[in-house]
Amino acid sequence: MKQNPLSLEALAQVDAYWRASNYLSVGQIYLLDNPLLKEPLSIKHIKPRLLGHWGTTPGLNFIYTHMNRLINQYDLNMLFIAGPGHGGPSVVAQTYLEGVYSEVYPEISHDEEGLQKLFKQFSFPGGIPSHAAPQTPGSIHEGGELGYALSHAYGAVFDTKDLIACCVIGDGEAETGPLAAAWHSNKFLDPKRDGVVLPILHLNGYKIANPTILARISHEELEELFCGYGYEPYFVEGDEPELMHQRMAAVLDEMVQKIKTIWHNARTLDSHERPRWPMLILRTPKGWTGPKEVDGLKTEGHWRSHQVPLSSLESKPEHITILEKWLKSYKPEALFDEKGKLFAHIASLAPKGEKRMGANVYTNGGQLLKPLVLPDFTAYAVNVPAPTQSSAEATRILGYYLRDVMRENMQNFRVFGPDETASNRLSALFEVTNRVWMAEKNSFDEHLSSDGRVMEILSEHTCQGWLEGYLLTGRHGFFSCYEAFIHIVDSMFNQHAKWLKVTSREIPWRKPIAALNYLLTSHVWRQDHNGFSHQDPGFIDVVVNKKAHIINVYFPPDANTLLWVGDWCLKSRDCINVIVAGKQPEVQWLNMNDAIAHCEKGMGIWEWASDKDKPDVVMACCGDVPTLETLAAVSLLRVLVPSLKIWVVNVVDLMALQPKEEHPHGWTHEAYNALFPKDVPTIFAYHGYPWLIHRLAYKRAHHEHLHVRGYKEEGTTTTPFDMVVLNDTDRFHLVMDVMHRVPKMKPYQEEVCQKMSAKLAEHKAYIEEYGIDMPEILTWKWE
Amino acid sequence: MKQNPLSLEALAQVDAYWRASNYLSVGQIYLLDNPLLKEPLSIKHIKPRLLGHWGTTPGLNFIYTHMNRLINQYDLNMLFIAGPGHGGPSVVAQTYLEGVYSEVYPEISHDEEGLQKLFKQFSFPGGIPSHAAPQTPGSIHEGGELGYALSHAYGAVFDTKDLIACCVIGDGEAETGPLAAAWHSNKFLDPKRDGVVLPILHLNGYKIANPTILARISHEELEELFCGYGYEPYFVEGDEPELMHQRMAAVLDEMVQKIKTIWHNARTLDSHERPRWPMLILRTPKGWTGPKEVDGLKTEGHWRSHQVPLSSLESKPEHITILEKWLKSYKPEALFDEKGKLFAHIASLAPKGEKRMGANVYTNGGQLLKPLVLPDFTAYAVNVPAPTQSSAEATRILGYYLRDVMRENMQNFRVFGPDETASNRLSALFEVTNRVWMAEKNSFDEHLSSDGRVMEILSEHTCQGWLEGYLLTGRHGFFSCYEAFIHIVDSMFNQHAKWLKVTSREIPWRKPIAALNYLLTSHVWRQDHNGFSHQDPGFIDVVVNKKAHIINVYFPPDANTLLWVGDWCLKSRDCINVIVAGKQPEVQWLNMNDAIAHCEKGMGIWEWASDKDKPDVVMACCGDVPTLETLAAVSLLRVLVPSLKIWVVNVVDLMALQPKEEHPHGWTHEAYNALFPKDVPTIFAYHGYPWLIHRLAYKRAHHEHLHVRGYKEEGTTTTPFDMVVLNDTDRFHLVMDVMHRVPKMKPYQEEVCQKMSAKLAEHKAYIEEYGIDMPEILTWKWE
Repeated sequence: MKQNPLSLEALAQVDAYWRASNYLSVGQIYLLDNPLLKEPLSIKHIKPRLLGHWGTTPGLNFIYTHMNRLINQYDLNMLFIAGPGHGGPSVVAQTYLEGVYSEVYPEISHDEEGLQKLFKQFSFPGGIPSHAAPQTPGSIHEGGELGYALSHAYGAVFDTKDLIACCVIGDGEAETGPLAAAWHSNKFLDPKRDGVVLPILHLNGYKIANPTILARISHEELEELFCGYGYEPYFVEGDEPELMHQRMAAVLDEMVQKIKTIWHNARTLDSHERPRWPMLILRTPKGWTGPKEVDGLKTEGHWRSHQVPLSSLESKPEHITILEKWLKSYKPEALFDEKGKLFAHIASLAPKGEKRMGANVYTNGGQLLKPLVLPDFTAYAVNVPAPTQSSAEATRILGYYLRDVMRENMQNFRVFGPDETASNRLSALFEVTNRVWMAEKNSFDEHLSSDGRVMEILSEHTCQGWLEGYLLTGRHGFFSCYEAFIHIVDSMFNQHAKWLKVTSREIPWRKPIAALNYLLTSHVWRQDHNGFSHQDPGFIDVVVNKKAHIINVYFPPDANTLLWVGDWCLKSRDCINVIVAGKQPEVQWLNMNDAIAHCEKGMGIWEWASDKDKPDVVMACCGDVPTLETLAAVSLLRVLVPSLKIWVVNVVDLMALQPKEEHPHGWTHEAYNALFPKDVPTIFAYHGYPWLIHRLAYKRAHHEHLHVRGYKEEGTTTTPFDMVVLNDTDRFHLVMDVMHRVPKMKPYQEEVCQKMSAKLAEHKAYIEEYGIDMPEILTWKWE
Repeated sequence: MKQNPLSLEALAQVDAYWRASNYLSVGQIYLLDNPLLKEPLSIKHIKPRLLGHWGTTPGLNFIYTHMNRLINQYDLNMLFIAGPGHGGPSVVAQTYLEGVYSEVYPEISHDEEGLQKLFKQFSFPGGIPSHAAPQTPGSIHEGGELGYALSHAYGAVFDTKDLIACCVIGDGEAETGPLAAAWHSNKFLDPKRDGVVLPILHLNGYKIANPTILARISHEELEELFCGYGYEPYFVEGDEPELMHQRMAAVLDEMVQKIKTIWHNARTLDSHERPRWPMLILRTPKGWTGPKEVDGLKTEGHWRSHQVPLSSLESKPEHITILEKWLKSYKPEALFDEKGKLFAHIASLAPKGEKRMGANVYTNGGQLLKPLVLPDFTAYAVNVPAPTQSSAEATRILGYYLRDVMRENMQNFRVFGPDETASNRLSALFEVTNRVWMAEKNSFDEHLSSDGRVMEILSEHTCQGWLEGYLLTGRHGFFSCYEAFIHIVDSMFNQHAKWLKVTSREIPWRKPIAALNYLLTSHVWRQDHNGFSHQDPGFIDVVVNKKAHIINVYFPPDANTLLWVGDWCLKSRDCINVIVAGKQPEVQWLNMNDAIAHCEKGMGIWEWASDKDKPDVVMACCGDVPTLETLAAVSLLRVLVPSLKIWVVNVVDLMALQPKEEHPHGWTHEAYNALFPKDVPTIFAYHGYPWLIHRLAYKRAHHEHLHVRGYKEEGTTTTPFDMVVLNDTDRFHLVMDVMHRVPKMKPYQEEVCQKMSAKLAEHKAYIEEYGIDMPEILTWKWE
């Protein structure tokens, strides 16, 4: 390693650029006006509310500046992920210095007026958010909720052969579970095909009010930890700028060489070994270059620098003096000309054009997005001569379709899941690809290879993070998961939905990206074998809290409807689609033509199961198992009370239940009332928690006649049919509901309910004796 | 380390005990009858549905058996956590062998009949779940959702000086984020005061259908990883039982010695160093001792052993032969006498009485639970001469109370949070205790010590897991968190709620444990400075999906009501309480007497703000900020339309909105209708997503007159008041809502709405100019 790789001139340039970015960062946090300090600083130049996070910012600036040098030196294709997204002032300052910011937001110009606007807008009403937000050029990562920087970075570099994701991980974030798991992503990165992540663990020592764990263990432990994670750790530690610049440059030069050697070996010499990728541990003081002490308390190198080191400036004029001194310590006069423009000899450190990290094309992935080449989904149709006359495992059928989607899109499509691709019956995928696996292999392994396109790690967090990174950089993906455990990524879903809400409607320069598609299978009604811990349909409730135009939820009742839905989801943009579908063999309802017609509407009357006349009751259903129970209930009712007029309504697109003004797929009240006549009782069997249907339909005219059944948190290890019985959502309970809710049924009520209760007792006795469901349940068919 | 520490006799006993437990495990998975194989095995003896996870089971049995020896040898106080809770057959078999199971469930006796029942009940309708469920004696961990074994184990040993938690971590679970983070718990364990976790990373090599990462990295990397985590790793690897028994015994002996030495040094020699606790890496084949091959495919030592290695026994009689041979390979005739009782010379390996891990008192923590010594919360009351005549930071006041709770309960109470105790203004706690911290300290640290009782790590998962483990072993705790980021533990909350649902009502021998209390502060309406990513009130929606008797949700509008709620929550049992309260200085509404009366009802009319007569409109509010906006709206209305009759209803206990039959705190329809007359429009300002109120109140008579405002996913970095404006929940919008919803207001509508719109425009202009809210907003007082 060279001792002092930077010439004096290069050193001066790097340091000036860094100082400029620090100056602009402090300016954003504090200044309303007087951006070049032409006047003595006074309270009128200072923002009334001081918001922002200084602590992490100088470190981010240091890294970004050095990456600029590195990009130039080695002509790298690099993007920047600020794990500490709170350091918004840094990424804004950097993209301004490199010129991208003004290209995107021309009013933020490179002169005094532009500087003043740049400063004022930060964290100011009507301005920009305080984080590395969607509004920030070059960002694919907001960083407000910590834990996902590294999985986002890995997601970005899968299939992007020459891309380097420089990923800064704060030592606070490093304590989170999702981050701790994501280090192992290096076992899924193919040096032949993929780009690489350059992880920088930034130890500035403190969180909000505490030291961090990794900053307070020995050097030896730290080194062992990252060797154990499979990396080759490099260290840059200190606080003296000149020494730090030289050391940083030397280490980064060596790391780039290391990466190039690994690429060369894998790509030219065809080495199949898992490489030890380099990673950097950078230790600098929190709030580096900020005030050393404030009010007699240590501030630089302490958690007191986390947000604003100086506050209450109105009541403490001495703080204004410190602030002015601090700003001037960067020597602005040596950085910016009279008019506020960065001197050219400093500005030339920025790379050119799309090599600038703020302009890296992958960070606005929609620009690169190519639609998937999709096979005709109708070619995979299950033959359904008549309802229930054939049987299929819906997800297995979808698997055939996904296999061919994969075959046609081997550069920009991946499937993600926590070790459940086979369990969820999507194994047809393995006819055309493998699971990616760079760790050790042995002779009896199946479907593992370094160039696989199915990504499995037992971490829903990592799957989600990878997929988000992959989508945000312009590719397509599909995530299959057990329904109950998708709750593990509730908060990640929330953050991605928030990102899309902002980018899709409020930022025209962000181009639409592919939808994030979830297939939730092994769902609540078919986790009878795993028991209560595996039974939870509540993710849907989390999903529908987000902005309506961002989210869609589908409950295809059988294989052909699932095919339509799968195809639709893979074509959609800037949204999150949730598909809930079973994997078990189930009776099929619709042939492909009927499935298409039904799905296009989102919900509708199943005429073959319904009376023509105005009904006495609407039997509605949503979800594969509730659909089965509803149809079985209807067939019982046909025999028990032949005079009863019934409509069967099936809902595929949950959002169709909402009014049109609430969701793009919502139905008008007029159309809705034609399905659910307002004075007719509706018995609604729903897949999830029943109150969700009330929440979606509370503005509908029939609401007071709506009676919903669904999962009400009852379950254990039992039989499939017993699961619906435990939750009063089985055919026998549904028949009893009709007896109680339809006034005309009064004369039949007692007799029919007795019969149904007897059936339920028979069921209980049977399963406790034999351990499986009664034959009449297992072999039921619509007739 | 001794080479062969076990005598021939001891070796034979350990091996026989292990074989017995394996036999009982296979029996549970497969056998309906013929438990001692007295008849040739045939299809009629075999369960019709084969459910269970064999793969992990023999390894769990191996560990449990060896721990029995260790407990006897060193007179240890040990509990067992089966991270792979799927290995239910193991913990059931083990607790049966040690006698605990039959003490708890006498019908499962130690004879042939008992054995038959033991086998049949497993995963059978009407029987027991397939996991280490709440029904399993000795379990505090279900293990269905992976990731929390280690944090549960650490939670169990805080403040339990002599307790060892033997914690088995599957190599699948080890890939999850929460588990990866929890290894660092060793930086929070005080060897002087606390017990210890004996972590066993069980590498059986496979997940459902994939190898595991940690089983496929080099020995060197594995060792470095755990040294880096701060442990001293030991290895036991192999598959030959005799060698493995000797090696396991030798290593465990050494590990116990190591633990005893650390304890001695800390407790007698007063060493303050962070110890390197031992941990074990155990590598054994998946499905060890099971069929080597099935249908020509490798099965032992392969993922094919994950669930049932043999299936389709009806159609493949040769599988019955393999099963019989497999069962007989354990030599049951040498283990059980004619009547089915384990031979005494084998049974004596089990420890005695409460030393048996299934009977460890900490695993039924309610038995040990001592109520907290609680100071009189009214002593902390804020003086409120009249509504809005004083101001306070609600959580700071609660902090004073918590400080004294802490002072009085220094053995069994801890406070948990992701680095937010100070930020959430609970810093009074630091007057009586510190943050626990065993990593390096330096001179300018504050409130860090090895015996601190505030637990802060930037991992919501770890905080939650620690707290659960602490509560389940009979102690008390309090978790404060930013509201948005509590979503990170949605799924952990779900699992704890499921555990409580079962233990509280269905298992009489499980004694009630202390409530899990969340304080959610830095909430959606006061995250204006951090922006959109920090704004999410949806955790409540997740919470209310769980069984009603398990959950409570409180929105105290000010400090005195918060004190009442805090006190109530710390006294409650077998439930989860969520408290949402702000930390900013806010006007106060109720003096302590009024606060008590109001909270005891859960909701009520604020008479001082309401008309006596029947109202034209009910202005309801729930949450501190919506309460402020509602009262401000009412004071505007009093001036704008003096003739309007208004009732102000405040809701503290969200569940009061539900009907009595739905939640224990629910109000009768009669009482409810007295607050919300059914033909009177209600304008309801709610803290969270507005549709939740509709979901809770949809059975109420006034539902069609209910109009709810709340957070609708609009936000950014702006001012506090602008946050409510962006979501139409501010005073001006509420006034306009009254104009639109109350028929009598027709004549005033246009004029008043124009005035309000002008106010909103004035607000926007003001904040964009000055960056803070208008003085009239900041200084508003009720008059």
